[in-house]
Parts: sequence; C-alpha cells; structure tokens
Amino acid sequence: MKPTPETVRLRLDLAYDGTEFAGWAAQPALRTVEGVLSQALTTIMRAQSAVRLTVAGRTDAGVHARGQVAHADVDPIAWATLPGPSARTPEQSAQSRLAGILPADIFVRRVALAPHGFNARFSATQRRYSYRIADGPATKDPLRRHDTLHLRRNLDVGLMHAASRNLLGLRDFAAFCRPRVGATTVRTLLDYSWERLDDGVIVGTIVADAFCHSMVRALVGSVVSVGEGKRSVDWPLRVRQGGERHPAVIVMPPHGLSLEEVTYPPDDEVALRAQESRTVRYLP
Amino acid sequence: MKPTPETVRLRLDLAYDGTEFAGWAAQPALRTVEGVLSQALTTIMRAQSAVRLTVAGRTDAGVHARGQVAHADVDPIAWATLPGPSARTPEQSAQSRLAGILPADIFVRRVALAPHGFNARFSATQRRYSYRIADGPATKDPLRRHDTLHLRRNLDVGLMHAASRNLLGLRDFAAFCRPRVGATTVRTLLDYSWERLDDGVIVGTIVADAFCHSMVRALVGSVVSVGEGKRSVDWPLRVRQGGERHPAVIVMPPHGLSLEEVTYPPDDEVALRAQESRTVRYLP
Repeated sequence: MKPTPETVRLRLDLAYDGTEFAGWAAQPALRTVEGVLSQALTTIMRAQSAVRLTVAGRTDAGVHARGQVAHADVDPIAWATLPGPSARTPEQSAQSRLAGILPADIFVRRVALAPHGFNARFSATQRRYSYRIADGPATKDPLRRHDTLHLRRNLDVGLMHAASRNLLGLRDFAAFCRPRVGATTVRTLLDYSWERLDDGVIVGTIVADAFCHSMVRALVGSVVSVGEGKRSVDWPLRVRQGGERHPAVIVMPPHGLSLEEVTYPPDDEVALRAQESRTVRYLP
Repeated sequence: MKPTPETVRLRLDLAYDGTEFAGWAAQPALRTVEGVLSQALTTIMRAQSAVRLTVAGRTDAGVHARGQVAHADVDPIAWATLPGPSARTPEQSAQSRLAGILPADIFVRRVALAPHGFNARFSATQRRYSYRIADGPATKDPLRRHDTLHLRRNLDVGLMHAASRNLLGLRDFAAFCRPRVGATTVRTLLDYSWERLDDGVIVGTIVADAFCHSMVRALVGSVVSVGEGKRSVDWPLRVRQGGERHPAVIVMPPHGLSLEEVTYPPDDEVALRAQESRTVRYLP
C-alpha cells in the first residue's frame, strides 16, 4: 500500500447513505462502499487491476458517512492524461467522472493529490461520529428514517450528557469493544456530548483518536440506558472501569450512526503521524 | 364534509417522505398520501365506508411534509370504543394504531379532537414551506438526496435573498400560478428568505396565507435564476408585475420542497377564519 515512484496517491473525501451497503469493506458477492468505489475508480483510471482503497473509518453495515476519507494509489500516466481535451485539472476530472458513474447513495465530494506520507487511516488524528435519536412521536420525521433511530419512550438528555462526560479521556475501552486478538483497546475519548436540536431530535457527538469495533454504538447504548431511567448516571463509567464487555450494554442499531469528520494534521506532519499511529498504544 | 351531530371531527398532524407518493390527492390506481392514510383510518375505525380527509396543503407528487394537517369525520361510537381494554385515550390509541399499520414513509404524529368549527384547509392562516438546494459537490449529502436539489453551479445566496424580499406583500401572484378557472391568484406572501446553513446547504423559507398551484416552486425558480447570475435582482419582481406566466420562470423539481408548518388561530377563532377563507380574495 506504500506509494511507489510509479504511483500517485490520491485523497478522496466522500459521503454515503449506508442503508443499502453491507458496510465499507469489500466482500465477495456483497454490495459494499469499498467495492463500489474501487470499481468506479478502476473504470475511470482504465486500470489493469482493481484500484485498492485504504479508509479512515471502516463503517459497519448500515452506518452512514458524511466526512469519510480514503486514499488510493494510481498510475501517474493515466492520472496525467485523465482530463482529456478539456481545461480541467485531473482532480476536477476525476471528481466529475466519479459523480457520473457512482450510484446515488455514494458521492465523492473531492479528489486531491495526497501530501507526502499521507495515509487515510494512520495519518488521521480524530474521528467524529454523530448518533441521531427521535424519542416519541412528535419528533419522528419519515424523511430522516434512514439516519435516525426511533424510540417510543422519551429520553432525559441532561442525564445522558452527564453520563457521557464521565467517560472522557485516555482509557481502556475494552468494556465497549468487540475483542480482537493482539489489538489494543486503549483510546482517547476526546468528546462525548448529547443535545436536543430545535426540531426535538436528540444528537450525540462522539470524538476519539480512533475507535475499536462496536465502540461507538456500545458507548451510545450504555448512555441511552441512563436516558431511559434504567441505569444511574455513573453506570457507563462503572462499565468502562469493569474492563470487560458487560452483557447489559446494548450495541445500538447502525442506522442512527454517521461518520461526520476525519481530522488530519498539517501536510508536513501526516507522515510522522502515520508512523506514530502504527505503534500499539498502552496506558501510561 | 361538515361535521354532523353523528360524527366526531379529528385533527391529524402528519409527516411524509413524498418520494414514493403520487402527491396528496387520492387517485385511482396511484399510491397517494390521502389514499394510504384514508385506508388506514378506515381500517382502525372499522368504518363501513372510506373515511375521507380534508388537508391544509395539497402537495404535488414528490413534495414532502413535516407539518401537514388534515381533518376527518368519524363515527362517535367507534371513536369512544377505540381504546379497547387499555388505559389509553382514543387519541393515543388512534395515533399508536395508525403508526402500527402505516408504511415507513408516512407518520401521524398526533391525533386530536378538532375544536368546534375547525377545517384543516379553511381555518389555516399560514403555510410555511422550505426548499433545500446543495450547490456544488462540497455540500452534496447522499443521505439527503431525497429532499435536496443538487445543482452543479454555485448560487449567490445574498442576491437570492434580496430578490425574494421584493416579492413580499398582498399581491396578485398570477405570474407564478398555474391558471385555474374561477380561482383568485391574490395571496399574501408573508416571508420569503434564503440562507446558507452551517453545512453549506441553501434553504429557502416561503410563508403565505395560502398558495396557488405551482406557486412555491415557481417563486423558487425565479429567484434561483438570480442566484445563478442569469437574471438581475429585480427580475422576479418584474415577472410578478407582468401579471401572467413568464416562460423563462422554471418550476423547480418537487423533491427539494417540504411543507414544514401550518398555522391556525386560537380554538375559538377557527370557525370564523374558515368562513373568511371561503370568500374569494381580490386586491383592495
């Protein structure tokens, strides 16, 4: 996946409606974001073999993205000759051609040359997710049914917010992660907050340096139990301190979740950041 | 449609994703909001003949609603016995049962007994619509593709806003209306404004006492021409002053449009308002 002198590394900023995708990662016989996007890139680049992608956040089936970032390495000659006779840059031409052939539920907003040493996954410093909940009939909007969870009972947003603040910091989040051999579960939770918007919908914001598998949806599930009055405000903190998966923590449905933004350092620091991220984190 | 001593008049507040509906009005062999809702009401009321509906805003095919209001007259005995053995009110029971049988793209948020003299169409004092436009690739969100128009070129929101303010007031809007014999085209445009939201999407707000057919989408089309730089700021005003349909005014696509809110006077004034509305308006 390292760019060679024979390739050009592209950064792609994209958004998708995850409803009809079996998640990000390419899988045989399943419609995935990576599969559809890789095919489109291969087509516009007229590449001999499939153009491969590396992504910042490997979203699960049904999870959406507004601010996903991926990188791909392409042939420099194919890249330079992409615009054809028009006056556009290769970047504009690639964005426009992808928009022309991708289906309506995936959209590449921007194609750019990646800075030296950029890696969409390892150069990222923060991922920001949102989770949308309509509690009770007054706030349910059929137009947003694809990206909003509907609950019948009302939630106490103040309690949810307080419970979330307890979880911030550099911690071991094993209690919220699906275990994976050899992988650390130490993460820095940079923000976790809840608010009720003007239209009555409740939105959670969750920011971390990185997330382990199922972590966002388990963090939301633990705090929704507080909002429902089933658990006390300090329960999610105690779950985290327990250090292992708690059977009462519900992993929330995917369709309320969207990857909103991925943050990168300045261009001259992306290579160093990628090196740092590859080292396994432990608690100090 | 008058409530008789033998009927109870209900007010229904509802929202729908208009994508898969051939508009509000019931039509043979077409899936319409009125058709689907009338069938559901008839089912839960176990009515002998179809329960009929009167609506505040007869939305066209593809137009959405978050704040639509309708009324229906139902049998008082069927109404009183609706809750069954549970402790719920008939209103709660009706809302819950409708939610149980309606498809996912239509949702009744509230069922209430209508105040004396209430008519969903004629008692209304204001209708508020929104129109959403994503101009350029940076603001396009696949999750909102069903209720947001995508344009390739950037729009000047300041010019659009200025052009819109010119149109306010009690005027003859014949230039923006599809003609209908015997119908007035005099309306009071109470608000027409444009802004760019934090996420870059442009939203127009259009409020009037009532709208004639195609009026909202033609008002948007005239002002989008200004935003694109094709027309001067005073062009929409001159079109309106022309008094007849202008071939250069584009009636915008339906899917950017949503009926957001219908306003009614206090309960003790709804009957009087309904009487007033039935009289044809002329310019003073």
